Amino acid sequence: MADSSGKKSRIAIVGGGLVGAMQACYMAQRGYTVDLYESREDIRRAEHVAGRSINLALSVRGRSALRHIGLEEEVVKSGIPMHARLIHSLDGKKSAQPYGTKGEAILSVDRRKLNELLLSAAEKVESVTMHFHHRLSQLDLDNGILHFTDKNDHKVEAHADLIFGCDGAYSCVRRQLMRKTLIDFSQEYIPHGYMELCVPPVPGTDGQHNMEINYLHIWPRNEFMMIALPNQDGSFTLTLFMPFKEFEGIKAQGDEGVLAFFEKYFPDAIEKIGVQSLKETYNSSTHLPLVSIKCSPYHYQDKAVIMGDASHAMVPFYGQGMNCGFEDCLVFNEIMDQFDGDFAKVLPHYSTFRGPDAKAICDLAMYNYVEMRSLVNSRWFLFRKKVDWLLNWFLPSKYIPLYSMVTFSRIRYHMVINKWKKQDKIVNNGLILLGLSSLGMLVWLISRGRQMQIGKLTEMLTERIQDFF
Amino acid sequence: MADSSGKKSRIAIVGGGLVGAMQACYMAQRGYTVDLYESREDIRRAEHVAGRSINLALSVRGRSALRHIGLEEEVVKSGIPMHARLIHSLDGKKSAQPYGTKGEAILSVDRRKLNELLLSAAEKVESVTMHFHHRLSQLDLDNGILHFTDKNDHKVEAHADLIFGCDGAYSCVRRQLMRKTLIDFSQEYIPHGYMELCVPPVPGTDGQHNMEINYLHIWPRNEFMMIALPNQDGSFTLTLFMPFKEFEGIKAQGDEGVLAFFEKYFPDAIEKIGVQSLKETYNSSTHLPLVSIKCSPYHYQDKAVIMGDASHAMVPFYGQGMNCGFEDCLVFNEIMDQFDGDFAKVLPHYSTFRGPDAKAICDLAMYNYVEMRSLVNSRWFLFRKKVDWLLNWFLPSKYIPLYSMVTFSRIRYHMVINKWKKQDKIVNNGLILLGLSSLGMLVWLISRGRQMQIGKLTEMLTERIQDFF
Repeated sequence: MADSSGKKSRIAIVGGGLVGAMQACYMAQRGYTVDLYESREDIRRAEHVAGRSINLALSVRGRSALRHIGLEEEVVKSGIPMHARLIHSLDGKKSAQPYGTKGEAILSVDRRKLNELLLSAAEKVESVTMHFHHRLSQLDLDNGILHFTDKNDHKVEAHADLIFGCDGAYSCVRRQLMRKTLIDFSQEYIPHGYMELCVPPVPGTDGQHNMEINYLHIWPRNEFMMIALPNQDGSFTLTLFMPFKEFEGIKAQGDEGVLAFFEKYFPDAIEKIGVQSLKETYNSSTHLPLVSIKCSPYHYQDKAVIMGDASHAMVPFYGQGMNCGFEDCLVFNEIMDQFDGDFAKVLPHYSTFRGPDAKAICDLAMYNYVEMRSLVNSRWFLFRKKVDWLLNWFLPSKYIPLYSMVTFSRIRYHMVINKWKKQDKIVNNGLILLGLSSLGMLVWLISRGRQMQIGKLTEMLTERIQDFF
Repeated sequence: MADSSGKKSRIAIVGGGLVGAMQACYMAQRGYTVDLYESREDIRRAEHVAGRSINLALSVRGRSALRHIGLEEEVVKSGIPMHARLIHSLDGKKSAQPYGTKGEAILSVDRRKLNELLLSAAEKVESVTMHFHHRLSQLDLDNGILHFTDKNDHKVEAHADLIFGCDGAYSCVRRQLMRKTLIDFSQEYIPHGYMELCVPPVPGTDGQHNMEINYLHIWPRNEFMMIALPNQDGSFTLTLFMPFKEFEGIKAQGDEGVLAFFEKYFPDAIEKIGVQSLKETYNSSTHLPLVSIKCSPYHYQDKAVIMGDASHAMVPFYGQGMNCGFEDCLVFNEIMDQFDGDFAKVLPHYSTFRGPDAKAICDLAMYNYVEMRSLVNSRWFLFRKKVDWLLNWFLPSKYIPLYSMVTFSRIRYHMVINKWKKQDKIVNNGLILLGLSSLGMLVWLISRGRQMQIGKLTEMLTERIQDFF
């Protein structure tokens, strides 16, 4: 495609993960010639894909981005809706907390299948060329030259007018960008790591799920927690989040240590995982770190820009990593429309516009790191959830709970935080006021000497309140 | 030297700047075999040293570190004491603000001379070998192998039991460390850059200073500022701090723009710099960025540790960059004593112990970035400085002003912040109380109908207060 100056532009995308593959679709759709470079093999031909989590929670932002390239329906069809959190208490009790106020659901999707679908969709367009086994070694940003090392350790040189760095949290493009221009950057590891386990389908069935299917299961245990998402083959993927120290401490105690730990904290999960499988998986897998990465700006002149995890890696506790990355592509596309594809205007505007939003969702994910582990256990938190639900029911367009704004809307993330803080203050003040006036009324009634009636009234109120909880 | 296990240890220091050269002295003093690698040429033989600022303010922490390797006296001898800030107002008025409460001074020292002195001191020790023109390209941390590129682009391999990364804010050792271990890291550029100018000695004299010599001169102008430190040759080095945008805006206007800008904001400096020199220097030099870098931890196992700017680069507004880097060496040495040179204990302890202090001084330097530009102009700030001085005079051991704790003590930086916040709260509350009780007294007196006497009293008090300001 010719840009506004009439010059034909060649696009290079570094990274063929979820965001890189999607961005290839977007740029191909606009008519550009696209080269996509991926350091690993083509996952569509791979036997085993290492490293990353197996399933992901797709929500409105991700779906909007998929819709725009005509893939939403296909992805949704193969996803499993999760309408609520299902909290597993230590005593074996389970309680559901709906995600949406209007029956909305998030979707459990298979990372690998989604990635394959995106790669195939991009490849279908004639102007897109895929280059696997191409590891970026250096970038000459000013001249648009990319240096790769291929499968046979040969050096490969490529050219592009615009380079997209979609190469993940440890982005090589970002590193090269930081050498050319002043970039504020931070990376922060949390004390928790994660490990994946598996709950297989009910034995002897053709893939029947062994726990309630349409839920995101959570075992909140304050200092650590476990979650489970359903897979299409009838299994669940469990993710255990725990401080590194704990992981190692338990490992040091061998098989018995693992079992004792699960018996203490996740007794209802042992049988479902299977004792043997639990011991083997725990002791043979490594626990992986979780990092939060922010940076600003995202671009260098009209030459290069980073997107997805390369520009904002977040801890996974809001399920927004992929959704935010996908929305990056959609936002970039909207800005391309706005500036008629003039990269010299599009890139700086994208940095300025998207930066505060990416920072906001990184911060919210960190906040949810606390909320998911402990707050879901707290009475006040549960009470506030119900108040949120009630207020939203009364004022559906005015009052939207935080989780809904993040997950079921495209309100800009940084606006979500502003709106949330404002709402939260009003509600908390309102509750305090309500409490005080109730107290006032009670005192007034007592002072009138109507103790008998009060006794009855209190009894009645207590019953109602208990129902509500 | 043999470590606690009886093994002889070979030390590699990457970076021959101020901190690297000092650390070489410290480790040599402990009897280790030391190799110091520096990417540039030997500055003792260089004609011109590029990049870094010309003079620095040495204070107690830096002096303590120099004392321990027997160099304090020599450095102090060639430094110029600065007892006070000399504030240049826009109207040409000058006012002094003493640094210390007991006549203490900070010392203007020549960066290059100090570096040369430290290199020579290290080289005097037989067990120290210097390798200039050695640019680190890669580190094999687990096996203690360092890969360098030399002057002729040849590859050089070296071995060490312990590696010190003293290679500055853009440290290559840190980058390699970050690949091996989880390191929290942040870098933040401020909107201001800096540029150096020069006030030559009085013409026709043998190096007579053209401004008051024993001061650090400051021209605070809120959005930007200029400072000047005296040099031994009779000149002053001026540093102009200004947002990048302003620098470029003025440059775009050519010679006339520079002159108009100085006439508006620094009229008293034009003649001293010289019109011709001002135009030439301004338009031919580039303005350089200022970055704040924090990270944690500083080490990898018992193999490597970073020190100085490599571990904590700070904006220069507290004059503590070098002092903190020197104190790193002293603190490391103290911890070596404490753990009898057992690197496996020394390195993690150094990370844990020094981390909060480095973070604190980076934050304080950022705070002073505001204070120096604007607060020194504010009446409240000046009043508080006087209150600080009075309180310190009454309670010398209990009440120490912030600047004194940072500059004239070795109180740990993070304790300085704690102490400061506590003191500040007490003083502010005290002042409010004093104000309120004065008001109360006044009201009481007025209500007693003694207006005549009050009139006289008020007059008297006003005079006293004006004197105090």
